[in-house]
Amino acid sequence: MARLLGLLSAALFAVSTTAQSSTYVNPAVPTGTPVPGNYTGDLRPQVHFSPPQGFMNDPNGMFVDAEGTWHLYYQYNPTSVVAGNQHWGHATSKDLYHWVNQPIALFPPEERVYVFSGSAVLDVNNTSGFFPDQDNGVVAIFTLARYYENGAGPQTQNIAYSRDGGYSFEYYDANPVIDSTSSQFRDPKVIWYEDHWVAVIAYAQEFAVGLFTSPDLKTWTFASNFTRHGLLGAQYECPNLVKMPVRDADGAVIDEKYVMAVSIQPGAPLGGSITEYFLGDFNGTHFTPLDSVTRLTDFAKDNYAAQFFYGVPDGQNQVNLGWASNWQYAQKVPTGNLEGWRSAMTAPRVNYITEAPRIGLVMVDEIYDVSPILDSKLKSETCDGEGRIALDYSSVESGALYIEVNVTNINTTLLTDYSTLNISFASPASGEILQSGFYFGGDTPFFINRGGIKGFDNVFFTDKFSTADVYSSGSSSTLASWSMKAVIDRSIFEVFVDRGFHTGTVVFYPSQPLTALNLASRLPAGASVSVDIWSLKRSWAEFENEQGTVLGNVTSSGNSTSRRSMVYDSKFSV
Amino acid sequence: MARLLGLLSAALFAVSTTAQSSTYVNPAVPTGTPVPGNYTGDLRPQVHFSPPQGFMNDPNGMFVDAEGTWHLYYQYNPTSVVAGNQHWGHATSKDLYHWVNQPIALFPPEERVYVFSGSAVLDVNNTSGFFPDQDNGVVAIFTLARYYENGAGPQTQNIAYSRDGGYSFEYYDANPVIDSTSSQFRDPKVIWYEDHWVAVIAYAQEFAVGLFTSPDLKTWTFASNFTRHGLLGAQYECPNLVKMPVRDADGAVIDEKYVMAVSIQPGAPLGGSITEYFLGDFNGTHFTPLDSVTRLTDFAKDNYAAQFFYGVPDGQNQVNLGWASNWQYAQKVPTGNLEGWRSAMTAPRVNYITEAPRIGLVMVDEIYDVSPILDSKLKSETCDGEGRIALDYSSVESGALYIEVNVTNINTTLLTDYSTLNISFASPASGEILQSGFYFGGDTPFFINRGGIKGFDNVFFTDKFSTADVYSSGSSSTLASWSMKAVIDRSIFEVFVDRGFHTGTVVFYPSQPLTALNLASRLPAGASVSVDIWSLKRSWAEFENEQGTVLGNVTSSGNSTSRRSMVYDSKFSV
Repeated sequence: MARLLGLLSAALFAVSTTAQSSTYVNPAVPTGTPVPGNYTGDLRPQVHFSPPQGFMNDPNGMFVDAEGTWHLYYQYNPTSVVAGNQHWGHATSKDLYHWVNQPIALFPPEERVYVFSGSAVLDVNNTSGFFPDQDNGVVAIFTLARYYENGAGPQTQNIAYSRDGGYSFEYYDANPVIDSTSSQFRDPKVIWYEDHWVAVIAYAQEFAVGLFTSPDLKTWTFASNFTRHGLLGAQYECPNLVKMPVRDADGAVIDEKYVMAVSIQPGAPLGGSITEYFLGDFNGTHFTPLDSVTRLTDFAKDNYAAQFFYGVPDGQNQVNLGWASNWQYAQKVPTGNLEGWRSAMTAPRVNYITEAPRIGLVMVDEIYDVSPILDSKLKSETCDGEGRIALDYSSVESGALYIEVNVTNINTTLLTDYSTLNISFASPASGEILQSGFYFGGDTPFFINRGGIKGFDNVFFTDKFSTADVYSSGSSSTLASWSMKAVIDRSIFEVFVDRGFHTGTVVFYPSQPLTALNLASRLPAGASVSVDIWSLKRSWAEFENEQGTVLGNVTSSGNSTSRRSMVYDSKFSV
Repeated sequence: MARLLGLLSAALFAVSTTAQSSTYVNPAVPTGTPVPGNYTGDLRPQVHFSPPQGFMNDPNGMFVDAEGTWHLYYQYNPTSVVAGNQHWGHATSKDLYHWVNQPIALFPPEERVYVFSGSAVLDVNNTSGFFPDQDNGVVAIFTLARYYENGAGPQTQNIAYSRDGGYSFEYYDANPVIDSTSSQFRDPKVIWYEDHWVAVIAYAQEFAVGLFTSPDLKTWTFASNFTRHGLLGAQYECPNLVKMPVRDADGAVIDEKYVMAVSIQPGAPLGGSITEYFLGDFNGTHFTPLDSVTRLTDFAKDNYAAQFFYGVPDGQNQVNLGWASNWQYAQKVPTGNLEGWRSAMTAPRVNYITEAPRIGLVMVDEIYDVSPILDSKLKSETCDGEGRIALDYSSVESGALYIEVNVTNINTTLLTDYSTLNISFASPASGEILQSGFYFGGDTPFFINRGGIKGFDNVFFTDKFSTADVYSSGSSSTLASWSMKAVIDRSIFEVFVDRGFHTGTVVFYPSQPLTALNLASRLPAGASVSVDIWSLKRSWAEFENEQGTVLGNVTSSGNSTSRRSMVYDSKFSV
């Protein structure tokens, strides 16, 4: 859970609606049934997850179960379009693009105590003892943050268990499992290591990630700290520790390493929130970085607090989702007033480690299999060096596109400062334009410019982002190749540059829908440029009723009265 | 020297004027007399150094001599407003604000060899043997970069010596002093350590800083590498190793540490170029960082390749100047076509190490004593919490202002998300505006927004920058204080936030001069806000002749013919 200072000021100084909604459990919050939502708004993403209504931030508790169902929980204020009154919202998916909204999974235990970020695990061997008769028990571990009239109280780590596969939870009656007097100790992420559980938890303002071990998820022992690495910003948040394969250029697994990811907020170099990561080894108690390199997950500003799904089989690529926003403007973007919701998650990403030219080992961030959302192929063109595509996609109901560009046979000795491949998306109605492109020569920057989109601005809504991609063969004289994938989805644009070596995620808010794609390739003769463009389905359409409302899973096993009473009857204490 | 890829593409592919000007020593370059310049243009900084004409990038060879004269050399193309044809320009100053342009100090030894970046030292003890009869000998050590028809040749480290205090140099006849076959080995910076010289040199594309030692500046021995630390970008450049005092909150010296600064270009998180630094200890051969923290010198995008002056007495604060631009647009900004020059240096900065609240040890970057350029005090006002200043400074001939803001007695428990202090500069004629400000509550961001300035734009000219300042007392309930200093100088704006814990440097190019300052303080009652605003002098005015031309030091000891012949007669080899 992020932006403690903000919540604090809200709670203390009653300067925004956050103050109202964040200081008691609102009886209006539906229990045992999903919050309904309308997903037809012009700014509402169609293939990305966003909450039915209200405010969402960090992804939480993500796991994939034995049936291959992906569970997404999220920091959720169902009663307002700003942060506060934090619950765990819940949605499930079979493909990570079509999401079924589920009843809210975790409720605040009492007034002035909020359910902040955390993770969940499948306790198949019943290490916790909560699941005597089942192998699909789910245990969530999360931060409960208490606020007093005069300020922030302690943040403690707590658990709740689910006997119905993660749809409803009961608080453990001996919480907290990790007590604390600190108001800056949060966001536990748990993994299994050989014979024990390992939690990484942020000591936010000490710039440390605490590592704890447990045999049963109830009793935790401090193991080590990972302290003051990389960019500090003004706080550490949402740590992740995850093992993933190291692959060679052909994709073969040659090793495995651990990634320690740390989100920083505020004070990121680009402003506000960002995520950095470190590559290293883990022995069950200590993480040892391979080097002192600071790596960033994204070259733009709208990918924060990403979490890796628990339950991906050992040896396989990992999968993560991030929060596609930035605390500098997350509570101000126009979707709140216009459509009653704020924040989407990023597209699902596939992660492994490999060697990038010159740079060395990096975590690749590629978009997850998009086949379930591909609608029709709108373009499939190739050209020799120079080419153009002008596409009117106003008839695409989703307003969402997926684009793949592959360039091969690039004779780098013929490149100039004008050797570019540019893709833009425009609204002929308003003249707004979202630009992106790659310069193959010189400093080889890939850029995104959302400055031409006029539906939202504030003093932190940075217009331009770029990175330098030392693409295959760099500037040598051999024939080089380059590729990119991109998805645009009404108010979110994501690019995966050069096999996922660089990822950029930006939100943008046009006053009129973008409906015109223009692509221009200006490369030397001999370069083979292939472009494929698909329209994307409206993932939410199949869940809409006649009134266009997405009700979600109304046949949930959850039962409002019983679960709420369980919450309040539990001997809960912080 | 930066942007090798760019120069390379220019040299190889002849796509820009760089190709012409960068491939031979232009006879038109004046020798023995300074390049004349006109410093009256609307975009020309009045208290910052900029070249008389042509293109400037990295500061080089900076030292302060026994008479207190500050010597600035700089990467200089006197024949074009883009990079190429690199010489070392030269200027001197007694106060770091009034600069006397000197004859070009270092010329390319031959065609297709460029004088890239480097440093200079005072060899008072004649360790080099070049100065038998003097104690003011100057030795410059720099990279010579050779380009062939078909690509980049080796970059080697070379020296030249000056017997006239740094005004003219003769190449050592046994260059190179550090040979290499690499085209990515450059930017030597030399310091004295106890009984020997130490050079730090960038292995640009291996992300390593090589440390070398020498008794005489002629013979160098490899000592160690500082490899793969912090953000890599796509290249390391312009390393600096410098010792500076560690001061307590009262300014008392309590320790001393070394700063290892590394510039990265391209591939900075904000795009293009940026400088990071590491704090640690140095034993004469090895630099050992205190921690794995990556710290940045600037929260904006226009401070690159900063160099620390040689010759600041041991134990004193250090002094640096940076290049106030970014390779993403340095060769495109409108001053080239409009006024015949491109790039200014930052204002001089004073540096020491101290504890920042929560963050820990940081290098402070404060503006150097501005008293020599203060003209008249335009405003000196105080208010209780809420206040406004509207200042028409169209009558200020320099168009340049210096601003100090001090806020004390801040009751942080009364702060809201609307507790701000904003300063903007506008052109009533064009409606253009440059904004900056601080939010005292929430995530405590300081921001700069140049997006309202319309005289220049490109896809890399980022509009907005921000940082999080955990200012004194942070969000505790005690009374807090905060301060800022700022200088605006026609096309450059620099802020020094909260005692120099954060520095932001931006260039901006208004279509009409900015002439209206607006300041608004919205703080709780009881907060004491004091604002002082001075107009600044036109530092260059005193050097102008009747035609408004700055001729510089035309009585230089340098002699064209003799020095040029020395260059060509020297047994120079790379």
